[in-house]
Amino acid sequence: MFRDLSEFYAWFSERNKNNQYEVHRMPLEDMDGWQVAEDTGDIAHRSGKFFSVRGVAVSTDHRDTTDWTQPIIVQPEIGILGIIVRVVDGAVHCLMQAKMEPGNINLLQLSPTVQATRSNYTRVHQGSPVPYLEHFAAPRPGGAVFDTLQSEQGSWFLNKRNRNMIVEVAEDIPVHDDFCWLSFDQVTVLLKVPNLVNMDSRTVLSGIPFFFSGSYGDRVRLAAGSGVPGGALHSVEHLLSWFTEIKSRYSLSRAPVPLRDVPGWTRSGGVISRADGKHFTVIGVDVRASNREVGRWSQPLLEPTGRGVIAFIGRFIRGAFHILVHARTEAGTNDVVEMAPSVSCIPSNYDGLPPAQRPRYLDVVESAQDQDILVDVVHSEEGGRFFHAENRYLVIDAGDGFGLDAPDDYCWMTVDQLTGFVRYGNHVNVAARCLLSCLIGEPAALAAASS
Amino acid sequence: MFRDLSEFYAWFSERNKNNQYEVHRMPLEDMDGWQVAEDTGDIAHRSGKFFSVRGVAVSTDHRDTTDWTQPIIVQPEIGILGIIVRVVDGAVHCLMQAKMEPGNINLLQLSPTVQATRSNYTRVHQGSPVPYLEHFAAPRPGGAVFDTLQSEQGSWFLNKRNRNMIVEVAEDIPVHDDFCWLSFDQVTVLLKVPNLVNMDSRTVLSGIPFFFSGSYGDRVRLAAGSGVPGGALHSVEHLLSWFTEIKSRYSLSRAPVPLRDVPGWTRSGGVISRADGKHFTVIGVDVRASNREVGRWSQPLLEPTGRGVIAFIGRFIRGAFHILVHARTEAGTNDVVEMAPSVSCIPSNYDGLPPAQRPRYLDVVESAQDQDILVDVVHSEEGGRFFHAENRYLVIDAGDGFGLDAPDDYCWMTVDQLTGFVRYGNHVNVAARCLLSCLIGEPAALAAASS
Repeated sequence: MFRDLSEFYAWFSERNKNNQYEVHRMPLEDMDGWQVAEDTGDIAHRSGKFFSVRGVAVSTDHRDTTDWTQPIIVQPEIGILGIIVRVVDGAVHCLMQAKMEPGNINLLQLSPTVQATRSNYTRVHQGSPVPYLEHFAAPRPGGAVFDTLQSEQGSWFLNKRNRNMIVEVAEDIPVHDDFCWLSFDQVTVLLKVPNLVNMDSRTVLSGIPFFFSGSYGDRVRLAAGSGVPGGALHSVEHLLSWFTEIKSRYSLSRAPVPLRDVPGWTRSGGVISRADGKHFTVIGVDVRASNREVGRWSQPLLEPTGRGVIAFIGRFIRGAFHILVHARTEAGTNDVVEMAPSVSCIPSNYDGLPPAQRPRYLDVVESAQDQDILVDVVHSEEGGRFFHAENRYLVIDAGDGFGLDAPDDYCWMTVDQLTGFVRYGNHVNVAARCLLSCLIGEPAALAAASS
Repeated sequence: MFRDLSEFYAWFSERNKNNQYEVHRMPLEDMDGWQVAEDTGDIAHRSGKFFSVRGVAVSTDHRDTTDWTQPIIVQPEIGILGIIVRVVDGAVHCLMQAKMEPGNINLLQLSPTVQATRSNYTRVHQGSPVPYLEHFAAPRPGGAVFDTLQSEQGSWFLNKRNRNMIVEVAEDIPVHDDFCWLSFDQVTVLLKVPNLVNMDSRTVLSGIPFFFSGSYGDRVRLAAGSGVPGGALHSVEHLLSWFTEIKSRYSLSRAPVPLRDVPGWTRSGGVISRADGKHFTVIGVDVRASNREVGRWSQPLLEPTGRGVIAFIGRFIRGAFHILVHARTEAGTNDVVEMAPSVSCIPSNYDGLPPAQRPRYLDVVESAQDQDILVDVVHSEEGGRFFHAENRYLVIDAGDGFGLDAPDDYCWMTVDQLTGFVRYGNHVNVAARCLLSCLIGEPAALAAASS
């Protein structure tokens, strides 16, 4: 364990030096182990495992555009994202891993204790066993604090889910190379550092409040707890009814389309991209790493064409900080909608469009003054699937002047209420969960803003 | 409102006299408005609405039989099952409807205030408007107490969901013919009467505890409340982890099959049935009714070949009554498993088989002594889709001699814990929800059994 964060940074930079990583772009057609199907153009691993890139036709009455076709990642397997926690001297500590992913900014980021696809842990690629996996497979020695199936990016993944787990161990366990214990307070500080705590860690950490509020609550110090004083504008019954109403009112259907027949997208120069430069490009990479299960491999990645904005617009209501949650439909959403941030988009996709055609509330985010910004940090999305996919995560206090009226598919709730829905899976989307994790250490900021 | 139940019975028998119903069997081929597709044999309404009967091939590693093919009802629309409640003199009252369904035992049963398919309320059949529907469509005058999407019988429906709603009104509202106010205490008594409170009412009533425990709790008398004293064996975190583990470990896939190609099932004599007489038969009926949106129609129904058993095995642990919940996979289950009763089967399907091939725990239910039976009532399943589909609903106190060890896909939880999962939808299956509704008025019985 680190006495302070300078010790952590020394360790982390040592990890960088001790391991060699090289990532080079390569044409999709030349990737070792992957093939492009002659009839469809779909890209899949020769083993049939891992994931594939296919085309999907989307039809919905819950987006401005009602019908579109796009490439999408298909990965029906449920992977495990798991963090081991241990209470030492009354403080929660998390076992984190310094892990390279080819799409990561800085290559090395902090990942959960275990980050394994089913292909990984059933050892399809004949690589090394996954360390600590035994703590996440039943029967296991520790107790599950949080264990739920959660969706990932619906714009890029079709119905993708991973199992998010936090498991508590009572005894000390060996710490392997590339792993370290970080106190919960240290983690909350590192969540403010750009491109350091990876997406898989952030989504799992959105479940850490259950460690404090659940049956474990009486045993641990509520360090930087998630409690927000005051009453909520709406009851939980009202919030669930709002969510059910939107699910019942709207529809979302998807049908497979051969990747080579997706209009507006063309394969040229070894990548698949759009003529208008929007959304993302499908690229191939060649990877060499000294500390991964397999030392060298190729794979496709999705490269977004601009930095995204993921933001909650909030304000104090009855003394409690509320956030404006959006019931959002994306191409890959499993059940029509999930609860999402107030704003999530890549602003450059809307360059040159009149204000009415830009994403709702983006102007509120872009015009926010420094003193009204509670969270502002750039994080990367999963570097095993996305190349340099950065989002600016923001929480804005829009102030009492921001009206409480909102369109039907937005609803005000407290941070605690949204966190409560994280427990049940497929309620809160990955962008909102990652943004919640950035708020975990922020009660002081919220309280200061209210005074 | 009725001063006592004899007033209710007088009103109910008057409803029976004032309305004429006739239901006759007719060949599937001759049903007005329905057609049997020439190429597939599938049965569908000519409008493309309502529902269809198709074939499905099921593959799973979570049943004794891993692959089978069967007829199944396909009805992708989300209907509304809704009860209006009103607090009068501190007591909750429910607005119930005396409603005929062609498959009902006794034809007339007590249904929710609104029981409408999307075809109903969008008036596909050009019938009368659905009374009280305005209370369930947003924006609505009352407050939602309970509002969630819930599954129906997975053995007979593919991925079917209905929206279960309880809405509270503050003011008195007009009571139309065939409708009546019943106090919550009266409802709990009627839930003990065979074939009276229909399935749609029972599944909605499984959400009534949220009226008492939620934000409304301080305003109403906890009449026959759901609270069970004592501690639970497992934390909610543990229960959710158990459920997630089973979902992640097992698989369920379904593929459409032409109804005429389902092995073991044949169309003959105007019905579709099995040569071995097991499971169910698909029949056609001709219906005349004086008080339905449409006065005369034909439709297919599924007729089970025997009475089912739906039972919780329970026992007191640490002073709290616990039930043994099964994570169960059925042909039509949306996401691999849902939480189900300890036993759910049609026993006659297993006649003549050796004990090892009979459903687990059925022997415990069948050998229970009278004094150990807390609930024992025969109810019908949805009479709009199933013909005389009766189940014997049982809750057994198996006593301290019944061991706590259970197979991996069973887990002990309190009645309150299982009820808590009802709130989030697609956690608790319809059999378990209906059984929970029979327990709502039973704290006295549970307490008596513990002493």
